[in-house]
Amino acid sequence: MTPITLITDFGTKDHYVGSIKGTILRTAPAARIVDITHEIGAHDVVHGAYVLFEAVKTFPPGTVHVAVVDPGVGSKRRILAGRYAGQVVIAPDNGLITLVHRHLPLEEMVSVENTHYFPGPVSQTFQGRDILAPVAAHVASGVPLVQLGPPTASVDILRLPEPVRLEPVGLRGQVLFVDHFGTLITNINVDDLASLFRSRVPMEVYVEDQVVGSVLTTFSDVDINETVAMVGSLRMLEVAVNRGRACDRFAAAAGTEVTLRPADDRT
Amino acid sequence: MTPITLITDFGTKDHYVGSIKGTILRTAPAARIVDITHEIGAHDVVHGAYVLFEAVKTFPPGTVHVAVVDPGVGSKRRILAGRYAGQVVIAPDNGLITLVHRHLPLEEMVSVENTHYFPGPVSQTFQGRDILAPVAAHVASGVPLVQLGPPTASVDILRLPEPVRLEPVGLRGQVLFVDHFGTLITNINVDDLASLFRSRVPMEVYVEDQVVGSVLTTFSDVDINETVAMVGSLRMLEVAVNRGRACDRFAAAAGTEVTLRPADDRT
Amino acid sequence: MTPITLITDFGTKDHYVGSIKGTILRTAPAARIVDITHEIGAHDVVHGAYVLFEAVKTFPPGTVHVAVVDPGVGSKRRILAGRYAGQVVIAPDNGLITLVHRHLPLEEMVSVENTHYFPGPVSQTFQGRDILAPVAAHVASGVPLVQLGPPTASVDILRLPEPVRLEPVGLRGQVLFVDHFGTLITNINVDDLASLFRSRVPMEVYVEDQVVGSVLTTFSDVDINETVAMVGSLRMLEVAVNRGRACDRFAAAAGTEVTLRPADDRT
Repeated sequence: MTPITLITDFGTKDHYVGSIKGTILRTAPAARIVDITHEIGAHDVVHGAYVLFEAVKTFPPGTVHVAVVDPGVGSKRRILAGRYAGQVVIAPDNGLITLVHRHLPLEEMVSVENTHYFPGPVSQTFQGRDILAPVAAHVASGVPLVQLGPPTASVDILRLPEPVRLEPVGLRGQVLFVDHFGTLITNINVDDLASLFRSRVPMEVYVEDQVVGSVLTTFSDVDINETVAMVGSLRMLEVAVNRGRACDRFAAAAGTEVTLRPADDRT
Repeated sequence: MTPITLITDFGTKDHYVGSIKGTILRTAPAARIVDITHEIGAHDVVHGAYVLFEAVKTFPPGTVHVAVVDPGVGSKRRILAGRYAGQVVIAPDNGLITLVHRHLPLEEMVSVENTHYFPGPVSQTFQGRDILAPVAAHVASGVPLVQLGPPTASVDILRLPEPVRLEPVGLRGQVLFVDHFGTLITNINVDDLASLFRSRVPMEVYVEDQVVGSVLTTFSDVDINETVAMVGSLRMLEVAVNRGRACDRFAAAAGTEVTLRPADDRT
Repeated sequence: MTPITLITDFGTKDHYVGSIKGTILRTAPAARIVDITHEIGAHDVVHGAYVLFEAVKTFPPGTVHVAVVDPGVGSKRRILAGRYAGQVVIAPDNGLITLVHRHLPLEEMVSVENTHYFPGPVSQTFQGRDILAPVAAHVASGVPLVQLGPPTASVDILRLPEPVRLEPVGLRGQVLFVDHFGTLITNINVDDLASLFRSRVPMEVYVEDQVVGSVLTTFSDVDINETVAMVGSLRMLEVAVNRGRACDRFAAAAGTEVTLRPADDRT
């Protein structure tokens, strides 16, 4: 059977993850469940949106992704099931699908409303178990999306910060999130960099007013414990410390300003 | 093959989880292993008992659950294999099975003693790998429980705190555990609440002497950062902060007193 | 299909683990992925080497192990694929394979260089996704190692600390790592102990200048909260506190000195 992936902010110490897996397997005993993460920051829809997007970029067609970062559980927000790149994403309509929706062609989408596919009592606090898990199991078993509820085209889209051009030349972006290694992942992508570098002006990267240096290609370009700015595996500008933690070195977190400016421009 | 779930306090940074999985797969190469949690608090048998109970409530018949929270490893405590609701629970006889045993009908139980099913040397500190893993693999492969050892009916049962009635009307319970979101899960269940509410006296929930408010139905009944008392997905009274951490707000932990009292009773 | 295990230092909060799993499943849709750990200390090749060795000792023949603790990613270090005990280990050539290589007979080994098996663009920072994952999927699908690149016999071996004999009788070793329970795992193994005990001199274990006591066999030999030295499940000397954390009790960490000396030798 096609894989069912899980992306949640439930942590791993409670019964939550087990309840979702048990419900999936009770509905579809042959389901193949794949943990992506249960450590999205509590209620951090932006982080969840990036992890979900990366998952859809790497998993094979047919995969069903269940994403549950759901601060509005129990409110009137809908649950969406959308097909992108031959994969199905099932998630609350709260912005989690933003990056998938912006970058991949939507093939079909419905609002999950047909209680035939989630027949049990629905808790006000754990719809991951009571709605998303059984629905995902049915979809992985072959139930067409159109049976889950009415088609819809509207998706709640997050307003994500975009980098801005500096005059006469430069870019001001920010840290989107800090990864497990303490590396700063910024919202400045390779296309932003490419257009900037066409100016042929030597640039340096700054985290607030602290200089990192020019954009290099790999950790091994710098010594251990040295800082490096480079294009990472997400194809976005990252600021790292070789075998160290850039978030500590620069006292940086999500939202911290990162700029590219001409090397001699120490304003 | 039927799923084998794992509920342990081993954490995930060491070789322990891998050793259990490898031993299962060496014994039963087609086994389907499902992680429920490895983050039960070290030696926290009460927390493990709740997670195990929720697992048995959601997984399908045939599932084999391996629960290893085992502060007495190496002592004379037995290892039990019991069938409840068509599922098999394999665990040390230290109270881990308490809630499953109290709430679900026992179909059969044995004391695991037949070394034919765990032929290797048995370490004094890691019987999860040396006994429970191979035994679970054999059970999932179809070995009847009666072959594992002599039938038994005695189970070590935890003495869990029960809520007490207050005069003239009210309930005094306590926090059982704090979940990943910082929400306080109490030992007051829906039946306790239903019998209390028959008095038709308006009640409020208190965490020690701090008022939470009346019992509502969902997070979206309160504003962000507001406290709420409600019946959670375990069908027990929970105290939460909408998108915040109740354990910090109320300086509460397992054992903290939670009461329901008439709204005007500020004693 | 044969299992593919994952041992990494990627943590579980980011997209990294999902990207590796998705890439494996895109290459080999029937792959069975088994998480061993993603919580190896960042860049801690020594810890990774021990976890990998324990995995190879427990998993069945045919298993493919992917180990990614790779501080030198992006540099010229090779990626190796070696067969030991009928299992395949795929890892960077940075010492991760040290213990497997020292203790198990090598059956064949190649340097992974054939880009036919990792056709996509290769990031400078995430070769786990771009090289190791697709290669592991191909090997699990039956591709012979010889097709991955040229045979090699050279492996980067870590210089691990060895215990030294004390005069007239005794051993000085050190803590290799601290496990999830706070137990100190030392580099003194059962063979070291056996040869020492042939002297028939009563010995005591010390953590630096703090006495632990003699070597016992199980936690239940001591009361709760008491310290105990014993041979653990790795068959190495461990120092533990019954239901407590030895690392806190002794202020010990990797590298802390642990000695065995005659009981009356309070030098």
